Amino acid sequence: MTFLEKLDACVAKNGSLLCVGLDPDLSKLPNGQDQFSFNKAIIDATADLVCAFKPNPAFYEALGSAGIVNLEKTCQYVRQNYPDIPIILDSKRGDIGNTNKFYAQAAFQVLQTDAVTLQPYFGKESLEPFIEYKDKGLIIMCKTSNPGGGEFQDLLIEEDMKLYEYVAHRVVEEWNEYGNCLLMVGATYPSELVAVRQIAGPTMPILVPGLGAQKGDLSALLKAGLNGDGTGLIINSSRETIFASSGSDFADAARETGQLLRDEINNYRGDKS
Amino acid sequence: MTFLEKLDACVAKNGSLLCVGLDPDLSKLPNGQDQFSFNKAIIDATADLVCAFKPNPAFYEALGSAGIVNLEKTCQYVRQNYPDIPIILDSKRGDIGNTNKFYAQAAFQVLQTDAVTLQPYFGKESLEPFIEYKDKGLIIMCKTSNPGGGEFQDLLIEEDMKLYEYVAHRVVEEWNEYGNCLLMVGATYPSELVAVRQIAGPTMPILVPGLGAQKGDLSALLKAGLNGDGTGLIINSSRETIFASSGSDFADAARETGQLLRDEINNYRGDKS
Repeated sequence: MTFLEKLDACVAKNGSLLCVGLDPDLSKLPNGQDQFSFNKAIIDATADLVCAFKPNPAFYEALGSAGIVNLEKTCQYVRQNYPDIPIILDSKRGDIGNTNKFYAQAAFQVLQTDAVTLQPYFGKESLEPFIEYKDKGLIIMCKTSNPGGGEFQDLLIEEDMKLYEYVAHRVVEEWNEYGNCLLMVGATYPSELVAVRQIAGPTMPILVPGLGAQKGDLSALLKAGLNGDGTGLIINSSRETIFASSGSDFADAARETGQLLRDEINNYRGDKS
Repeated sequence: MTFLEKLDACVAKNGSLLCVGLDPDLSKLPNGQDQFSFNKAIIDATADLVCAFKPNPAFYEALGSAGIVNLEKTCQYVRQNYPDIPIILDSKRGDIGNTNKFYAQAAFQVLQTDAVTLQPYFGKESLEPFIEYKDKGLIIMCKTSNPGGGEFQDLLIEEDMKLYEYVAHRVVEEWNEYGNCLLMVGATYPSELVAVRQIAGPTMPILVPGLGAQKGDLSALLKAGLNGDGTGLIINSSRETIFASSGSDFADAARETGQLLRDEINNYRGDKS
């Protein structure tokens, strides 16, 4: 089963486009929780509400090898207990091909995740070791959610084409021979999401981070990015959902916030489908 | 002491611009060696020949948390036994600011390395958590060594300026307020190194990977990148040096290869200074 098939099945089963980011920032963990116990509680509380889980390795690397053990245990916990839920490793890796071979091994063989996020800067040739994993998902950074992302991404490279649009064109038209490429566009840029949806065509899913803490506008992004049958987006919420409460009720609060978000998304999806 | 001061001191002490990449590819380790024992032997054999060591985390992540333990032990071994040699973490990280905070923590507080390599795609604003470490070195990918790097890096963004040149301009003119930024240009692109040296001015060091296995031309890159006093480059050799022999004499062979390379570089430096 490919990542995209697994994703579609999970979207259908849970009736959800919501992805929960497993970013256990140590400074925000509720009392008595370590990264893995926190993640377990969040995963159990939201597993029927999500289309994917998305751990970002930065939050684990900040604890050194002990953090990587937490990341490994987290991925294993999802795989063993919720094998239908795809795991997106939000590692934003990118290097020369000989090095990417090892990053791909880390993502797909060691952590056994279903998809990774990748940097475009080194070009397609560098990413071949990822692309060869035909059943995995490769999510290429296109227009990132941060306020300063436009410094390079918005550069005009032709009279009316910006760099992020050119990246989208290359990925859609040249990189996707095995149908395993996706794009990432920040929730904070709905107009850019319109442009990327147009380039990507109706079916390629787009990962959209930046909704909560980064203040992306849900209705705008759904209008911009949903395809005709109300799918085509993976809408990530990390901090807003997992740290909805800092007390002992954090898992219930995460569930409640996640459920509201999923349902709000689904209201718009209903209008579309 | 800043990274640049430490680098300059090590360049002077060891009379060397050679950086050895600690990339212990499991499939190439000599019989009986694990990543850390291999690295220790390479470090001991080359410590008086280098201006820096440069571990790339991909090769450790491919072993999961056990690999990260090897990376931690490797960095610690250099710090404890060769405190004058700067460590460049070649992690090519890049994410939004809130995430980069944790990547910076991993590089500078957990691994206690002296410099990191970074992706430019998210822009300066995203890299502020790195930039705030004023005493560390931030080496920004500019023109990468891989054959397909030009897919985006060579795009014309103005009539006569390519994206990699624009990145260099931004880093030199806007990002470097604390004097802690450097650039990376692949050894495989000597003409581009000329352009970047011109943009960077005479003093900013440029990290140059891609010399050996990737077939960069040493004399061309030295001519292109050395500044007036024969410094200004950090010339990396990974595979060519550390895997010079696959037998039990690997450390001696690495030393011999590293020494030849350092001396060959120094011949050119002599002509310059």
